[in-house]
Amino acid sequence: MSRFFSEKYKNLTPYTPGEQPKDTQYVKLNTNESPFPPSPNALRMAAEAAGNLQLYSDPECRDLVKQAAEAFGVAEDEILFTNGSDEVLNFAFMAFCDESHPVVFPDISYGFYKVFAALNQIPYEELPLAEDFTIDPKAYCGIDKNIVIANPNAPTGIALPVSAIAEIVESNPNNVVIIDEAYVDFGGESVIPLIHKYDNLLVTGTFSKSRSLAGGRLGFGIGCKTLIGDLNTIKYATNPYNVNRMTMAAGVGTLLDEDYTRENCKTIMEVRQWTAAQLKKLGFTLTDSKANFLFAMHPRADGKEIYLRLKQKGVLIRHFDTPRLHPYNRITVGSREQMEVFLEKLKEILEELL
Amino acid sequence: MSRFFSEKYKNLTPYTPGEQPKDTQYVKLNTNESPFPPSPNALRMAAEAAGNLQLYSDPECRDLVKQAAEAFGVAEDEILFTNGSDEVLNFAFMAFCDESHPVVFPDISYGFYKVFAALNQIPYEELPLAEDFTIDPKAYCGIDKNIVIANPNAPTGIALPVSAIAEIVESNPNNVVIIDEAYVDFGGESVIPLIHKYDNLLVTGTFSKSRSLAGGRLGFGIGCKTLIGDLNTIKYATNPYNVNRMTMAAGVGTLLDEDYTRENCKTIMEVRQWTAAQLKKLGFTLTDSKANFLFAMHPRADGKEIYLRLKQKGVLIRHFDTPRLHPYNRITVGSREQMEVFLEKLKEILEELL
Repeated sequence: MSRFFSEKYKNLTPYTPGEQPKDTQYVKLNTNESPFPPSPNALRMAAEAAGNLQLYSDPECRDLVKQAAEAFGVAEDEILFTNGSDEVLNFAFMAFCDESHPVVFPDISYGFYKVFAALNQIPYEELPLAEDFTIDPKAYCGIDKNIVIANPNAPTGIALPVSAIAEIVESNPNNVVIIDEAYVDFGGESVIPLIHKYDNLLVTGTFSKSRSLAGGRLGFGIGCKTLIGDLNTIKYATNPYNVNRMTMAAGVGTLLDEDYTRENCKTIMEVRQWTAAQLKKLGFTLTDSKANFLFAMHPRADGKEIYLRLKQKGVLIRHFDTPRLHPYNRITVGSREQMEVFLEKLKEILEELL
Repeated sequence: MSRFFSEKYKNLTPYTPGEQPKDTQYVKLNTNESPFPPSPNALRMAAEAAGNLQLYSDPECRDLVKQAAEAFGVAEDEILFTNGSDEVLNFAFMAFCDESHPVVFPDISYGFYKVFAALNQIPYEELPLAEDFTIDPKAYCGIDKNIVIANPNAPTGIALPVSAIAEIVESNPNNVVIIDEAYVDFGGESVIPLIHKYDNLLVTGTFSKSRSLAGGRLGFGIGCKTLIGDLNTIKYATNPYNVNRMTMAAGVGTLLDEDYTRENCKTIMEVRQWTAAQLKKLGFTLTDSKANFLFAMHPRADGKEIYLRLKQKGVLIRHFDTPRLHPYNRITVGSREQMEVFLEKLKEILEELL
């Protein structure tokens, strides 16, 4: 830390991203990436866009907004795009939360929420998940505070039904409820249609998972036009040209290939089901994941030990070393072939450990 | 504005980017873009990187940092990359300025500085440029406040010598001095070597201008390792994967083609000199620009009128409608062919007006 660093941030603990090893030798199941390449249209359009890189990108992302508004069934002024969904989440924390507007989220969820709160000096409260890792929607009803919920939640993969979210949103009419739908395309239900009913609902999403653009960085927020207007005020006071030309074009290309995305999601859900069944046979306990990852623990094998031994054997999964999560690991659902390697190595480890 | 927008931002006036018209019919001389495409290596490497877009980008930007550290003559922990240089500037305002650490910049400069200050609730002071639009370095010496200076300055193009910057940095040892070198490659002198002497100097730069990557969004900050460490703390608490894979690869490719960049800069400087001479023949008064733009006024023709009539004739330049800047226009130096069209239309307008 330099002697110039503002007091405001002296105790700030940044987010720790999952390992991104430079060598690609690993079977990489640690950051919920897609095993499938981007759609052919995305690749073609990104390459075309590179030809004009000397010109600034469109700060309004007009082509992309038009295509996405149609795909998501919203108006063009009800959506904005950002440099990954972390950016729209940060904008939302900035725009709607402050010292007198605290924010509430589950104690086990995307680890960045508390970093955004700390970064922006926003008081926050973490509501504990139930024993079975589910979110109790009642705990969020009528609390008169801003709320952030990942649905499906991470790292558990457990999803809330639309009706439960609607109740939370409706019972907190003077607060913004942010539903982070990063993983919704793998079996969850989107609440995007509810933005036409509730002016206090912001839905965030990403092209990183189901649309295979993690390395392109493309996120979005969807809400009523005044919420999106506020996020645009923050964007234009932070980084107006936040989405680059190639990613913007790749986003358009991806939306032209929605069948490809749906097909990939279907495959991942099938592989998830198959992998879950195999893990159960090996004695693992799993949550009911509706995301592109599994959350699993073995009653007789240490979670961190499994993670470390898998890494030694060339398979990366994600371990969160907190007391409650210690027994568990989060395993991205990759291709069938990747999951076969994972299971083979896992069997070896269980033989060593048990 | 929604009823949820934080009081903090209710009076925030965002930055207004230059027009980015969707139709490319215009001769576009309004946002200081390069008339040259990115280097061939940049295009090739960006296209290759698109093939792995399903994987997150490297949050540490290791390949790019390695290449850039070598190119700029600094160590790898003395540089960080961001999503355009607006992002590193915002990070620096966040990290080093606050209620008790105000910031000072020229009253005529990059319009975003005061937006960053307002966004982050930082008290700021604007020091007036001299009558001839120069910055008086003495006015910044020993003021015990953080300082931001664009060098060359915008929209004037006037550059300070390294010795003047050194004096400012040295005389404010307890404050951070940020030198924004967005336009330095067109005839200015970089103060990057001074970071090894002063721990309170942060240099920011961009690949948007001399390196033809405006649409890729790639900016950087260079300073001593503790300053860069603080900016990384902010980055990892905001958007760890802030640079996408394609842009990162394009950045590496660009740095492999430094001769191409130097050649383009040389051409732009030659065209700048030629255009300036033509403008003087037409009766214009110009500052001594060391940037890829000219700043010009005609003693008998209204600046805004010239801008509007040029736009009607298909040539976009940038007009800033403040009392002091009203007589002036900022004209990007494009290709010789673009400048010929610009001058031709300008002659027509002068004939209409005078």
